[in-house]
Amino acid sequence: MSAGASTGDTPRLGDRRTLARTLTWLEAGDPRGRAADTGTREQDWAYVVGVTGSPGAGKSTLTNEFVRLLRHSGQTVAVLAIDPSGPFSGGALLGDRIRMSEHQHDPGVYIRSMATRGQLGGLALAVPASLRVMSACGFDVLIVETVGVGQIEVDIAQQADTTLVVINPGWGDHVQASKAGLLEIADIFAVNKADRAGADDTAAELNYALDFAAPNRWRPPVERCVAETGEGVEKVWAAVQSHRHHVTSTGQLDRQRRSRRIEELRIAVREVAARRAERQLQAPDAAAVIDSVAAGDIDVVDAAHLLLDGDQAGGAGTRQGCTTAT
Amino acid sequence: MSAGASTGDTPRLGDRRTLARTLTWLEAGDPRGRAADTGTREQDWAYVVGVTGSPGAGKSTLTNEFVRLLRHSGQTVAVLAIDPSGPFSGGALLGDRIRMSEHQHDPGVYIRSMATRGQLGGLALAVPASLRVMSACGFDVLIVETVGVGQIEVDIAQQADTTLVVINPGWGDHVQASKAGLLEIADIFAVNKADRAGADDTAAELNYALDFAAPNRWRPPVERCVAETGEGVEKVWAAVQSHRHHVTSTGQLDRQRRSRRIEELRIAVREVAARRAERQLQAPDAAAVIDSVAAGDIDVVDAAHLLLDGDQAGGAGTRQGCTTAT
Repeated sequence: MSAGASTGDTPRLGDRRTLARTLTWLEAGDPRGRAADTGTREQDWAYVVGVTGSPGAGKSTLTNEFVRLLRHSGQTVAVLAIDPSGPFSGGALLGDRIRMSEHQHDPGVYIRSMATRGQLGGLALAVPASLRVMSACGFDVLIVETVGVGQIEVDIAQQADTTLVVINPGWGDHVQASKAGLLEIADIFAVNKADRAGADDTAAELNYALDFAAPNRWRPPVERCVAETGEGVEKVWAAVQSHRHHVTSTGQLDRQRRSRRIEELRIAVREVAARRAERQLQAPDAAAVIDSVAAGDIDVVDAAHLLLDGDQAGGAGTRQGCTTAT
Repeated sequence: MSAGASTGDTPRLGDRRTLARTLTWLEAGDPRGRAADTGTREQDWAYVVGVTGSPGAGKSTLTNEFVRLLRHSGQTVAVLAIDPSGPFSGGALLGDRIRMSEHQHDPGVYIRSMATRGQLGGLALAVPASLRVMSACGFDVLIVETVGVGQIEVDIAQQADTTLVVINPGWGDHVQASKAGLLEIADIFAVNKADRAGADDTAAELNYALDFAAPNRWRPPVERCVAETGEGVEKVWAAVQSHRHHVTSTGQLDRQRRSRRIEELRIAVREVAARRAERQLQAPDAAAVIDSVAAGDIDVVDAAHLLLDGDQAGGAGTRQGCTTAT
């Protein structure tokens, strides 16, 4: 689908089981997943909408409303829900099945969550590849849903063509410190649960902050909605469409995609090189280098240089940490 | 200081400004910081206590109580507070100065926060180096304080010799999914704000979960406290001391430190190799490779191999993402 794909196209949707298997490969870092990530030109990639925000902000509910809206207008949609997989978050959710149950007989909807642990490049490589594979299956729109709590999640949110940040009334009080970052990544703000007290203040505060932000050709609109009831959801989606029109017509979409592609290649290059280098830790002299670190003879970065090429690059000199050394 | 350092030692404390400058170098990835990270043998490193938990759990308050307790018993202490620096968190805090103000005329206390963005190895390398430099300045105990919300923070928490997880009453209801991870990394649980409703239930739930966890030579105790008033803080600290005695007497401390050192070297090796490899993106043929990715001719990992050594390793084959390919 081109960025301006019409909604009238017949969906060329793949077999779900093949798609699911491919995404599982990508999630696990299995090379068979990567083999599926070719054959589609960038200009044919589906449009990607990122939905991010704090836990409990209502991202899934809003995404589900978008899915309903898109299906209603005849468009097909696939959702990739990123499940942050740190020890604190608990791993894969049963959410997929619950969310899919509403759409189980509709080939125009696909919902999938993804969690990764430690494979090559992690989510930074698995997510864009998954989006391309989903894209190749002919979905009109892709939605990538992330919890915006850490750098990894933010990086993923930035892989979207349009990034929607979901906040709640009273947000300004809670995460004052977060504002700057949110202002940077959001193309659109949705104040969800806008039937609660403080929605006006939150929207006003945000608008105030946005007025003072660095001037840009696109000024993120602040839309209110109640995803639970569907109220205002169309307006939020209309804002997504406006942003899409903006990035498409200004050529920003192409530039964004190219810079994301370069960034992705940068991550892949780093990761492939890092994997190869790790083998040096199995080298016979690795134990001696590790012991030198323990003895305080060498710092760990110099030790790494030593292992990689026998060259103690970077100036390890006298210790200067404190004047009254032991 | 050895792991079993007596409290009677005269603190050999360095000049604060030199220490502060060195930590700033380490934070910024300046090689002068690394130069300070040598000269002390591992067995002389200070004992490191990690304090982690959700935002608002009361980590800083509890840490401040520990500082008071330690000073009261004549021990010196340095605190490294990790400030997660994703776009969502907002960057450096003024907290240091506020927290230090109570101790400004006491050379036996040092409090410092650290945030890092993207330098070599990030916090994974800066934190242990900083702890060693602080250690070399002669502090008896180091406390590293992290917000336990993401993988990076958890990794840091695991760099401590004893990891204390701070939770609050009602915690069980809130982050059900997180339990498994917390159970894995905690050596001690502190139920802080234990004067609130639900403290007994939370402690009971935790104990129940711990009884079912994989058997271990150390069974994390669950202690209740009210850091705001100081109530129960001594009991929590006593638990830290018990764990310290356990890891020291069983040899676990040495094994832990050695495996952390190997892990640190692994990160450094990966990072140094990745930095070197990134230069390939400046190579004359890089643009063509990037265009091949855009054209769908090659996947990004194969592109990385191609850039690194002209070899298209890893099987890019036919696309299998969906059966009805475009």
